[in-house]
Amino acid sequence: MDPRTAEHAAVLVDWSARIERGDDVVVSVAEDAHDLAVAVAEKLGERGANVVTLYASGEVSRAYLQGHDGDFDENPAHELALYENADSVLFLGGGRNTSALADVPGPKRQAQSTATTGIREARMDTDWVSTVHPTRSLAQQAGMAYDEYRDFVYDAILRDWEELAGQMAEMKDVLDAGSEVRIVKDDTDLTMSIENRVAVNSAASVDYDSHNLPSGEVFTAPYATEGTVFFDVPMTLSGKRVRNVQLTFEDGAVVDFSAESGEDALADILDTDEGARRLGELGIGMNRGIDRFTDNILFDEKMGDTVHLAVGRAYDSNFPEGHAEEANQSAVHVDMITDMSEDSRIEVDGEVVQRDGTFRWEDGFEA
Amino acid sequence: MDPRTAEHAAVLVDWSARIERGDDVVVSVAEDAHDLAVAVAEKLGERGANVVTLYASGEVSRAYLQGHDGDFDENPAHELALYENADSVLFLGGGRNTSALADVPGPKRQAQSTATTGIREARMDTDWVSTVHPTRSLAQQAGMAYDEYRDFVYDAILRDWEELAGQMAEMKDVLDAGSEVRIVKDDTDLTMSIENRVAVNSAASVDYDSHNLPSGEVFTAPYATEGTVFFDVPMTLSGKRVRNVQLTFEDGAVVDFSAESGEDALADILDTDEGARRLGELGIGMNRGIDRFTDNILFDEKMGDTVHLAVGRAYDSNFPEGHAEEANQSAVHVDMITDMSEDSRIEVDGEVVQRDGTFRWEDGFEA
Repeated sequence: MDPRTAEHAAVLVDWSARIERGDDVVVSVAEDAHDLAVAVAEKLGERGANVVTLYASGEVSRAYLQGHDGDFDENPAHELALYENADSVLFLGGGRNTSALADVPGPKRQAQSTATTGIREARMDTDWVSTVHPTRSLAQQAGMAYDEYRDFVYDAILRDWEELAGQMAEMKDVLDAGSEVRIVKDDTDLTMSIENRVAVNSAASVDYDSHNLPSGEVFTAPYATEGTVFFDVPMTLSGKRVRNVQLTFEDGAVVDFSAESGEDALADILDTDEGARRLGELGIGMNRGIDRFTDNILFDEKMGDTVHLAVGRAYDSNFPEGHAEEANQSAVHVDMITDMSEDSRIEVDGEVVQRDGTFRWEDGFEA
Repeated sequence: MDPRTAEHAAVLVDWSARIERGDDVVVSVAEDAHDLAVAVAEKLGERGANVVTLYASGEVSRAYLQGHDGDFDENPAHELALYENADSVLFLGGGRNTSALADVPGPKRQAQSTATTGIREARMDTDWVSTVHPTRSLAQQAGMAYDEYRDFVYDAILRDWEELAGQMAEMKDVLDAGSEVRIVKDDTDLTMSIENRVAVNSAASVDYDSHNLPSGEVFTAPYATEGTVFFDVPMTLSGKRVRNVQLTFEDGAVVDFSAESGEDALADILDTDEGARRLGELGIGMNRGIDRFTDNILFDEKMGDTVHLAVGRAYDSNFPEGHAEEANQSAVHVDMITDMSEDSRIEVDGEVVQRDGTFRWEDGFEA
C-alpha cells in the first residue's frame, strides 16, 4: 500500500471529520477505493468509532436502475434509518469507470433522486466528508499516468491544513467586510454584490462547514451581478465537453451566453429554471497543492489562483442566521472556472485583493 | 460475466429469498463477489425492491479490529436500525483470502461478537440468505482450478430446487414419523432419539426455513445418543486441520474421543460448555450436485450421501411450538461429516431408509 494512503486516512478521520470515540460512522467505498477503506477502517478502530461500510459501485447502481421500471419507493425505511442514526458519513470515491452509468436514461436517474430526497437530506445532516482515492480511472480522466496522478492527488490532500485555514481566514475577513467584488481579466469585467452575505472558509473540515477533502477555497453567494465573464477552463456538463464559455449579466441574470463547444449543454442548464440564470456561488481557489486542471470539480475548483462561479443554487451557509430562504433555490448548481494566475485582479470595494495570482498578504504583491 | 452468474442471482432472489416489490433488502458483498452483486442488483431492480449494499471485506474488518482497543460499544444504533428496518439480507460471500483475519486475537473478535449480539439477532430476524460467488480464493481452499471450481459451485447451486424439495419432503416425513435413528458403517454404530422433534426440509429457501444457497439437507435435533461414530471427512476447526475424528457417546454425552490430527482443537471445542459434549444436529445431505469435499461447510454438509452431526447448539426450528427452550444452548455448533456412499446404512425405527448411498424411494435400493 502507498504509505500516503494512511496519511490520507488520518487527515480524513481527524482533521476533516473530527471522529470521536463512540461516533456511528458510515463509510461508503467506491469499487477501487479498497486500500483507502482499509486505512480508514484502521483509524476508525483506533478512535473507537462504530462503522457500517457501504459498497458504492457504479456497475451495481447501473444494473439496479436498468432492471427497475422507474416507479421508485420514497425513502426506503432501512436506508433512511441508517443515516438518521449516523453521526458521520465518509464517501471514499474512486471507481473503475467514470462513465459507468452512461446508458441509464436521465429521467430514471432523476426519478430515483427525487424519490430519495429524504435520504439525501438525512445524509447531509450528518458530519459528512467526500474524498477520492487515486484510481486508474481518475488518472485516465485527468490525462495522467497512474503514478503521476497519485502524486497530484496527495499533493492536494496532504496539506498543512491548519496553516491554509489561517490564510483563508484572511480572505474570509475581506469578503465579510466588503460589499462588492469585481473580477477583471482579458474578456472579463464582472461586478457582484456580497453585502449581507457570510463567506465560508472551506478548510476541508466539518468544523469549518467544509465537506470536501481536498478543499481550499473561500466561497460566498453573490447577487446583482453585472458585466461579462470568460471561463477559460474546460468542463464536462451532462457528459459533454464545454469550452470557453462567456456569460453576460444584467440586473443579476444571464442575458447573453456563448461557448466554443458544447453550447447546447450550456443552454439546457441555463433554461432549467429562473435561478439557473443567476449566480449561486463565487469561490476563490486557494489550494496551491493543486497545480493543474484534471476535469474533476473536487480538485479543479480548489486550485490556487482560480475563481469559480456557479449558476444556480446557493448554499445556506452563506446567509446570516434566519435568512437562508433568500438563497437561490434553483435545481441546478453548475461551477465554471477561470484562471486568475496572470494579467488579472480581484477587487473588493475597489481595493485589489489579488493581482496576477498573488494575494495582498503575500510577498511580491503589487497593489 | 459468466452467464451462470445471472442464473445464480435469479435463484437467490426468487427461489431462496422470495423478494417482492417494495421489500427493503440489504446486500452484503464480499471483496471479490462484485459480478454476483451486479447480477443480484439487476434482479432486485426488476422485482422493484429497495437496496442498501454493504462492503464485507476481510481486510477492512481486520484493519478496524487491529486498530480498536477491544472495548466495543454495544449494538451501534445506525447498524441496528439498518437491520431492524430490513425485510431481507443477502450475504454474497467470496473474498480474496480465507485467512484475512488470521492475526486478529481471538478474544478481540469474541468481544466484538458479544457486543453486537443484538445486531446479529436483528439480522437473523429478517429473511436472510447466505450464498457464495466462486472466487479464486475459494477455489484454492478447495484445491481446485478456477474454471473447475466455478463448475463445481454452479452444479451445487443451479439445481431443480422444486424437485429436490419434493425428495427431501419424503425424508422429512420419515424422520417426523420416527423415534430413533441408527447410523451404521465401518467403525460406526450410533443410535439417537428424535422423538418429539421436527425435521426441517432445508430446500435453500426462506419459505422452507432454509437460509443457505446451496442447501439440500434434512436436519433434526437428536438426543439420548449412544454408541460410536467415525467422521472420515476432514474439517478445519479454529484454523487447524482435523482428521478422522471418533466420538463415543453414553447417555447422550461424549465420553471418549480421538482424532488422528488436530485432537487439541477438538478437545477445546468439547470443553466449551456442558452442551458441547451433546449433539445439536443430525443432518442428512441430499444435494447430489455436490460431488466432492471442498473444506467449506456451506457445501460439504449438503453433499449427497453424507450424514453430518453437530456437537453443541440446536436450532429452534427442530422443536415443536413452545418447546424451543429444550434445545441444546451451547455456545458452539460444530459440524462433522461422515461419508455414507458405501458399506453403510441409515435406519429409522429399525427400517433401512438409505443403504450404500441409495434412498428407499430410489431405483436400485435394497432393503
